[in-house]
Amino acid sequence: MNTTKNSVVIIGYGGMGSYHGKLIKDIEGLEVTGAYDVLQERQEAAAADGYQVYESFEAVLNDPKVDVLVIATPNDIHKDLSIRAMRTGKHIVCEKPVTLCKADFEEMMAVAEETGQVLMVHQNRRWDEDFLMIKSMYDQHTIGDLFHLESRVHGANGIPGDWRRIEAYGGGMLLDWGVHLLDQLVFMIDSKITSVSSRLSFILGDEVDDGFEAYLQFENGISAVIEVGTTNFITLPRWYVKGLEGTAIIEDWSLKGRMVLRNNEVERIEPKPIQAGVGLTKTMAPPSEGATITEALPAAYQHASSFYTNFSEVISGKAEPIVKNAEVLRVLNLIEAIFEAGRTHQVIKDFDMYEAERDNVTPSFPVC
Amino acid sequence: MNTTKNSVVIIGYGGMGSYHGKLIKDIEGLEVTGAYDVLQERQEAAAADGYQVYESFEAVLNDPKVDVLVIATPNDIHKDLSIRAMRTGKHIVCEKPVTLCKADFEEMMAVAEETGQVLMVHQNRRWDEDFLMIKSMYDQHTIGDLFHLESRVHGANGIPGDWRRIEAYGGGMLLDWGVHLLDQLVFMIDSKITSVSSRLSFILGDEVDDGFEAYLQFENGISAVIEVGTTNFITLPRWYVKGLEGTAIIEDWSLKGRMVLRNNEVERIEPKPIQAGVGLTKTMAPPSEGATITEALPAAYQHASSFYTNFSEVISGKAEPIVKNAEVLRVLNLIEAIFEAGRTHQVIKDFDMYEAERDNVTPSFPVC
Repeated sequence: MNTTKNSVVIIGYGGMGSYHGKLIKDIEGLEVTGAYDVLQERQEAAAADGYQVYESFEAVLNDPKVDVLVIATPNDIHKDLSIRAMRTGKHIVCEKPVTLCKADFEEMMAVAEETGQVLMVHQNRRWDEDFLMIKSMYDQHTIGDLFHLESRVHGANGIPGDWRRIEAYGGGMLLDWGVHLLDQLVFMIDSKITSVSSRLSFILGDEVDDGFEAYLQFENGISAVIEVGTTNFITLPRWYVKGLEGTAIIEDWSLKGRMVLRNNEVERIEPKPIQAGVGLTKTMAPPSEGATITEALPAAYQHASSFYTNFSEVISGKAEPIVKNAEVLRVLNLIEAIFEAGRTHQVIKDFDMYEAERDNVTPSFPVC
Repeated sequence: MNTTKNSVVIIGYGGMGSYHGKLIKDIEGLEVTGAYDVLQERQEAAAADGYQVYESFEAVLNDPKVDVLVIATPNDIHKDLSIRAMRTGKHIVCEKPVTLCKADFEEMMAVAEETGQVLMVHQNRRWDEDFLMIKSMYDQHTIGDLFHLESRVHGANGIPGDWRRIEAYGGGMLLDWGVHLLDQLVFMIDSKITSVSSRLSFILGDEVDDGFEAYLQFENGISAVIEVGTTNFITLPRWYVKGLEGTAIIEDWSLKGRMVLRNNEVERIEPKPIQAGVGLTKTMAPPSEGATITEALPAAYQHASSFYTNFSEVISGKAEPIVKNAEVLRVLNLIEAIFEAGRTHQVIKDFDMYEAERDNVTPSFPVC
């Protein structure tokens, strides 16, 4: 066991790269010692933040003091940089999406296996409190069995004006935000996905999707809507989930929200019809007085540790990774199915890798 | 031209039947004179409302003073009652869904053609003010070209505890509320529907759907989500629509809502990243100060006349129907496609009757 801190070097010192420095700052067992970026201005920013600046990626690899590389570059070069680093004995934390397609990540996993280095993907939104509140509800049946989930992020800024607009760099919203929302779902729901349909948005005229809607059906009966939008001047709620006993909503990252549950203490009274537009409706009338109870959202699910604490323990052989590579691979496979469903306007079935280990299921659509 | 009022008899004096009496009360050229229902208590209610009560449906047909029948019975007998009435020289207003399948309505249309009687379906929600505000936005490009529409009605009362739970009577939410929401869309958007997928909900264990989500793609590029839910203790907005210049929302039938538009007067400034959960996001940060303008919703589109004023003019030969039978037929065909998509978990294409007159398109899925 290594009693000194493991030395971490950040590769790619943009917005996310420098954020990793802050995340690692207080983690026992890890210390950011250096950085490298292809842009001079970012090299200077790293130096200003007190890090040793390397003159090349090779120089990082050749530095025997470096134990860990954080790969925070554009998506298309994650694989090559990670593989080269693992082959020189470095552990890897890689930004998401780890690769643009499943096959590339399988290559990375093979090298991790071969070299014995740790490879963990930064699916940090498994630690988002909004998601962890939903996971609490799901695990504890707070509003009865959850049977329908809608997970949305809406912005009005289009795609950021950098490599995220370029297909070859792995741009687009399905790979950028979709990978988070799908990862959360797959982490929470222990069931095979039986079908996926989707709609990709190209309204901004970029070569990559500026948003998407995906509709998932799980074998256990749960359905889900996953949506990312960058042309939404008004946002729909971050979460909207339905259980057998109630409905819950989380408006946004401020965690404003509520649960409304059926009040089983009162006898069920059919509500009176209301005027709705030019017609009457009994079906859509609000439940009668006292028929529901409104409650605050439950406490969030607690992970055993944070992403970087877990990573630190994993490289010290003290813990299993919370973000498992098999899960990351499954999400990439799901993303390929969503792209396929959107491009072909078809429902995609029999693709999910959930049972792959048991049944050796082969995807039914082309992979890159 | 008939200068006296046309005599109207209401068949089926439940919640909707008696509501028709109120709707017709102030219409020039129409007068409700009688009613008939199979239930004694409803016969008594009709008598209490001042109407002549007939002892049988045949007695209504045999009364030569009766010009118009309003058919407000369960859905499965609309066809037979309407056809018998048209054959005895009565005009028909029929509740929605007019029939449970397209083929049945084609029979009704054939009899209307053959007898020369007027047959109009009560798709009254074309006059709902919330819808007419959206139609204004659509026609006038108030938030730029509308390219995405979400139309939802949410309740928490399940399906009303009457024939609406029974498949043979034409129960279920797709036929009940779906027919309205789809009719509005088809009336507004002059384009062929190129594909439909859907999810039918049976969470309440009824033999009919207790809700559904349908995803429509139009040839002109517009996409739409149509959703009806009866297990929603919190409601999502009645309307959520996206245009090239902004987004609009209508919360509910109180017409509370707003439009948020891009402010083209200010230079576009990329917003600063915000903390969102455990991560940063620039993409999903609120637009920077002054980058958007919030406005009140526009005035509603004005129809030339109300449903019953139009009907009165149609039977007097003074106007064309606002609710055209070809449109009603197209919506029934669309409903069959949505059922098919939901049952088979497939995307349904090449079904829409939009171009049927030009190209003689045949539906590609079985019809009842």
